[in-house]
Amino acid sequence: MPKNPQRYLGGRPIGYYRPRGSQDIRHLVEHGFQAFNAGRLSEACHIFTDKMLAPENDTTIGLTVAGALTPAGLGGCVIELMDRGLVDFIISTGANLYHDLHYALNFTLHRGSPFLDDVELYEQGVIRIYDVLFPATVLLETDKYIRDFFVREKLSGAITTAELHYRLGHDLMKRFPGCEDHSVVASAAKFDVPIYTSSPGDSSIGMNIAYHELMNGGTLMIDPNRDVNEVCAIILAGNKNGCVILGGGSPKNFYLQGQPTLWEVYGIPKGGNDYFIQITTDQVVWGGLSGATPSEAVSWGKVNPGVLPDTVVTYADSTIAFPLFCEYAVGSEHGTRARKNLYLKRDQLLADLKRQATEAARNRPQPEAADMMPDLERHR
Amino acid sequence: MPKNPQRYLGGRPIGYYRPRGSQDIRHLVEHGFQAFNAGRLSEACHIFTDKMLAPENDTTIGLTVAGALTPAGLGGCVIELMDRGLVDFIISTGANLYHDLHYALNFTLHRGSPFLDDVELYEQGVIRIYDVLFPATVLLETDKYIRDFFVREKLSGAITTAELHYRLGHDLMKRFPGCEDHSVVASAAKFDVPIYTSSPGDSSIGMNIAYHELMNGGTLMIDPNRDVNEVCAIILAGNKNGCVILGGGSPKNFYLQGQPTLWEVYGIPKGGNDYFIQITTDQVVWGGLSGATPSEAVSWGKVNPGVLPDTVVTYADSTIAFPLFCEYAVGSEHGTRARKNLYLKRDQLLADLKRQATEAARNRPQPEAADMMPDLERHR
Amino acid sequence: MPKNPQRYLGGRPIGYYRPRGSQDIRHLVEHGFQAFNAGRLSEACHIFTDKMLAPENDTTIGLTVAGALTPAGLGGCVIELMDRGLVDFIISTGANLYHDLHYALNFTLHRGSPFLDDVELYEQGVIRIYDVLFPATVLLETDKYIRDFFVREKLSGAITTAELHYRLGHDLMKRFPGCEDHSVVASAAKFDVPIYTSSPGDSSIGMNIAYHELMNGGTLMIDPNRDVNEVCAIILAGNKNGCVILGGGSPKNFYLQGQPTLWEVYGIPKGGNDYFIQITTDQVVWGGLSGATPSEAVSWGKVNPGVLPDTVVTYADSTIAFPLFCEYAVGSEHGTRARKNLYLKRDQLLADLKRQATEAARNRPQPEAADMMPDLERHR
Amino acid sequence: MPKNPQRYLGGRPIGYYRPRGSQDIRHLVEHGFQAFNAGRLSEACHIFTDKMLAPENDTTIGLTVAGALTPAGLGGCVIELMDRGLVDFIISTGANLYHDLHYALNFTLHRGSPFLDDVELYEQGVIRIYDVLFPATVLLETDKYIRDFFVREKLSGAITTAELHYRLGHDLMKRFPGCEDHSVVASAAKFDVPIYTSSPGDSSIGMNIAYHELMNGGTLMIDPNRDVNEVCAIILAGNKNGCVILGGGSPKNFYLQGQPTLWEVYGIPKGGNDYFIQITTDQVVWGGLSGATPSEAVSWGKVNPGVLPDTVVTYADSTIAFPLFCEYAVGSEHGTRARKNLYLKRDQLLADLKRQATEAARNRPQPEAADMMPDLERHR
Repeated sequence: MPKNPQRYLGGRPIGYYRPRGSQDIRHLVEHGFQAFNAGRLSEACHIFTDKMLAPENDTTIGLTVAGALTPAGLGGCVIELMDRGLVDFIISTGANLYHDLHYALNFTLHRGSPFLDDVELYEQGVIRIYDVLFPATVLLETDKYIRDFFVREKLSGAITTAELHYRLGHDLMKRFPGCEDHSVVASAAKFDVPIYTSSPGDSSIGMNIAYHELMNGGTLMIDPNRDVNEVCAIILAGNKNGCVILGGGSPKNFYLQGQPTLWEVYGIPKGGNDYFIQITTDQVVWGGLSGATPSEAVSWGKVNPGVLPDTVVTYADSTIAFPLFCEYAVGSEHGTRARKNLYLKRDQLLADLKRQATEAARNRPQPEAADMMPDLERHR
Repeated sequence: MPKNPQRYLGGRPIGYYRPRGSQDIRHLVEHGFQAFNAGRLSEACHIFTDKMLAPENDTTIGLTVAGALTPAGLGGCVIELMDRGLVDFIISTGANLYHDLHYALNFTLHRGSPFLDDVELYEQGVIRIYDVLFPATVLLETDKYIRDFFVREKLSGAITTAELHYRLGHDLMKRFPGCEDHSVVASAAKFDVPIYTSSPGDSSIGMNIAYHELMNGGTLMIDPNRDVNEVCAIILAGNKNGCVILGGGSPKNFYLQGQPTLWEVYGIPKGGNDYFIQITTDQVVWGGLSGATPSEAVSWGKVNPGVLPDTVVTYADSTIAFPLFCEYAVGSEHGTRARKNLYLKRDQLLADLKRQATEAARNRPQPEAADMMPDLERHR
Repeated sequence: MPKNPQRYLGGRPIGYYRPRGSQDIRHLVEHGFQAFNAGRLSEACHIFTDKMLAPENDTTIGLTVAGALTPAGLGGCVIELMDRGLVDFIISTGANLYHDLHYALNFTLHRGSPFLDDVELYEQGVIRIYDVLFPATVLLETDKYIRDFFVREKLSGAITTAELHYRLGHDLMKRFPGCEDHSVVASAAKFDVPIYTSSPGDSSIGMNIAYHELMNGGTLMIDPNRDVNEVCAIILAGNKNGCVILGGGSPKNFYLQGQPTLWEVYGIPKGGNDYFIQITTDQVVWGGLSGATPSEAVSWGKVNPGVLPDTVVTYADSTIAFPLFCEYAVGSEHGTRARKNLYLKRDQLLADLKRQATEAARNRPQPEAADMMPDLERHR
Repeated sequence: MPKNPQRYLGGRPIGYYRPRGSQDIRHLVEHGFQAFNAGRLSEACHIFTDKMLAPENDTTIGLTVAGALTPAGLGGCVIELMDRGLVDFIISTGANLYHDLHYALNFTLHRGSPFLDDVELYEQGVIRIYDVLFPATVLLETDKYIRDFFVREKLSGAITTAELHYRLGHDLMKRFPGCEDHSVVASAAKFDVPIYTSSPGDSSIGMNIAYHELMNGGTLMIDPNRDVNEVCAIILAGNKNGCVILGGGSPKNFYLQGQPTLWEVYGIPKGGNDYFIQITTDQVVWGGLSGATPSEAVSWGKVNPGVLPDTVVTYADSTIAFPLFCEYAVGSEHGTRARKNLYLKRDQLLADLKRQATEAARNRPQPEAADMMPDLERHR
């Protein structure tokens, strides 16, 4: 089968655009984005730079990423925010991290079209992510790199996704020096920003760990428990807490469940988020979590009841809105913060969580046996 | 704080409606649903009943569930499909399974409104899922049941989500006899239908396992690797494969990555899905996986290139479209199949996967060292 | 160019499905549609049948229609509602009325697919409306019928769209007896239901009137003023007022501006709508009128401030939700009302409007010259 | 009733932001907007500036406007495009033109929030358009200005919307010198850009003409026929034709029906559009015209079959995407064209249309009587 993927790969290579803090763009946001979603994007820029990044608030900022943002070249925005200390930890779909590796390994993704014949693409060995195109061999080679990394590094036992991504990032930097300028995973490792994945089996990274177990007898395994607890511990330690949610999906919930875990499961009255920014195209009326509003989150204790003015949802494609948002933030007077290096503090934060949870448990009245099934309404 | 949740809980209790195979509804679908999304829903009904359920095709059918369907009372549709052998395995968000437990435990969720004051709800201890309302104590009691179950059953070590849910379902049936008529988790256990969760830490079930580890020193842990491999093994064993995707999200991808795992990672040329039905409100133009079309999936080997006519996406809220779909299927001549009891066959299927993967690996040419970084295009 | 449209026209003919009041469907709506948009659809069914159709309310009910509903076969639902007196007047896009004529003239539209090659369709002389297909000659013949009708009936001078459609309907019934069972335009004429179009030049009907003026020297012209005033007069005369809005668009606004015209322009304090039902897929967050909520309409005096509980928006494709809605209403105890025959009462209603407006003007204080530019805030 | 609207009017005044051709924004579009809707917006910018504005193509460019863009402050973008000759004629909803008058009359609209209590707003006399707020008196005063204008200018008889808006614009400039910098209607009059409205009765302007007829015995009336024919004539005269469609709705169809009117009704084989740019959030899968693709338009002869590469739809809120689009165009090497002054050429263009249509009619074979109802498929 003499495949010829090249005929589909003539579009310009996709690179990681780095926001530079354009004052023109800040002017547009300030004076041209006045109402509707432009107004919301302007609000989001202000909440982020004026409040979340204000030194006196010392906000612990989580970024959640769903939707194919690294294939679309948005990784540069994330790198810039990490470098400048504007994001402290990340929760991402596995797919975004897997496709980020293509950039680290210097494989080329191309601008294309969403209107191609997929049967033809399949026959020619071309993979399509909406309008992004690349040869199927990029997948095979990236998979191979991942599996070799497991073997080479002798990864074993149950670890967090944060540790997996951190070690992956360092391996990339060691083997492909300079790649951190082109890789979220590598630069996160460089800047000690932990990256979590809420659905560890759901991506090509997870598929390759599964292979490693089945075929190599590897013991490497993701421990979702510790992921949950580390995120809770990070949130618990925050002076103020805030999030930037791109898309929605499982990463959004994984972040937002942090506060309910604290009060509902651990009995620690931490309170909800202080700031909440979401850029999404999902809609509240479809009833899913991706489209759920900050207001709905209040009833769950995910968002502080008093802070609804400090929450905003911008309905827009992140590929348009997020670069504008980053330009605004980078160019602001709060465009740089000291990095929190949370990756290095995980053990200590976890110990704090355990201590506080133990204390909370001690102070809770012991439930009587009769409480086992309380006086809740039942209709059957 | 004398909370008074009752004033918000006057709406009718939400129950698990069971489809009964209405011939009126089949008539409407056949003659009234002719074009646009009504036409697509009619197509979906035909692909499911005429093709996927046709005895000669012996299709292995996966159902993926995202969006808050159990809170909206859709669990009865899923139970009916499992009971009749029309669905062989399930991939669900954890949230749907967690909220299903409220029904099993006979706590009452109420019809409400999406237009309430969430600060007031929060103060009164009422939880809101879009327009579904219930007391916050329902969460606390459900959590308590889950944690007690872990202790009582002495769950330990790394297990699959399928096993976790199966054992949970049997515990529910044992302690609350008859609850399987009101619980997806319990009835799945009864019918030996495995239920997987792609994001095991991302839900209150996951939160409570994390608690169990941190506070009880429990060793219970979800092994995402085995989840990935079991789903692959189930798909590999299918005579034909097809899916019904409600919503999208992480469960959709977790199902659809099965075929790519087989060819891309294990080197087994299984081919893609034969049938693909999705009910969603997400859109292709936003570029995410939830809205990605069967056509795009062809380029990834997730859907067989030859079967695009046997794929369909209906753009509709599942709360409306799925009950209609189930009524149509249940009332059709293929409204009952022998159940596959896949839960009981997991070990054997996994062994088959390992055997075929080993064979495939043996037949693959050993890559030379020079192949390590192949002749792929790079633009840096 | 030997065109061959037949190869695309193999799909089943699209007919006008007539709802029959299925009790199964009423059962599903009552017990299965509990939350999310299913819950909203259930609410819409209840507001319509329990309140709008309740004899004691004697509600004047307007139906507005946007989106290609007649091509999709939804005309039968509208005919059934008119026949039963459940809808008193209609505001529709011209396109829906134009395509309705194909059914009256017994031309066949076919079920097709949205995934065809449009360049090929164009070359073969096939017209596509999403997934509905028919030969381009259907357009040419329908146009010819319309132009012949103008000449034959010697239509001239400025008339309302209601009169145009009424006379068109009677011509159809005269020339194609029995066609009223297959035509909204014809059956509206039969049942004396006035049909207005908010954008009279924007459809093939308008295009052919424009031709008639330019090429035949015809004087026939639509008078938008009288359309506006007749709709206001109908609303003014209503005991209670309510609407069923399919889609949104210009027809939605044309209906909803009725009340503001009364208070803002004519000075008559009629108050806003008492009932408001919309089935749409547009979203409030995009800021357009199609997606604007009943709540927003309150600030404009379009909806009565006290009745928000009697308003509902169901987010769904009308092709799915509207037949269900009609089945529910037709099968209810209020499934038939005496028809209001508003077409025959237009002159009298208009006279009433003029009388009341004159009285209101008499009672308004005469503005002083100094009032010309009042003390409103200006920022330049 | 001592109303106090001021408490809701504390937000910054909304002004008409004027794009200035920022090179930073051009850089972002070029290098940062690579895929997904960012990629589409980049494509739209290139089609507009590289092709539609290329001197050798001498494209006649129509801009259609739906959605509340003038309330959101987008009027400045439209003024800049007209001033620079980058838009030759406009089709707008009446609402956008009506609300534009507030700016001309120097009334102030304010930035607000979409989350206010509308019953309270109603009681305080505040009007809300999504998140834009202003006192109800602004409506009353604008209405008064319009009605006074009719009387003062002695407007009478049937005229086009283009003439109505043109004369309105000149009246504004005469009475409020300098207002053209803050008004689309006034600046269109200044630059001889005709503005059409597809739904002349559907807005407060139309409501006030209707008042004028009913209460003043005025004969002023919009002639939709001449609107249709003028738009056809403008399109017919274009060397190349292209459109920029904001939103969709009735203005979109009114523009796009131009070519079908020419071939289907007048028998003039002009061919479809050469360029097609749409910025919308509507979706193809809902089946309406607003979301219909350039591809679907090919089957109707609305878009030239050969030019699909020169068509693009960007899915985004116009309030974000249109200012970026305008900055890109204004800053390009084709950022200024000679204005076409189409308003002044309408009579001549209409005469050309009539001449060509007469010729086409002469050359068409006379249909036989037997052709009256041709051999089309019928299924009844």
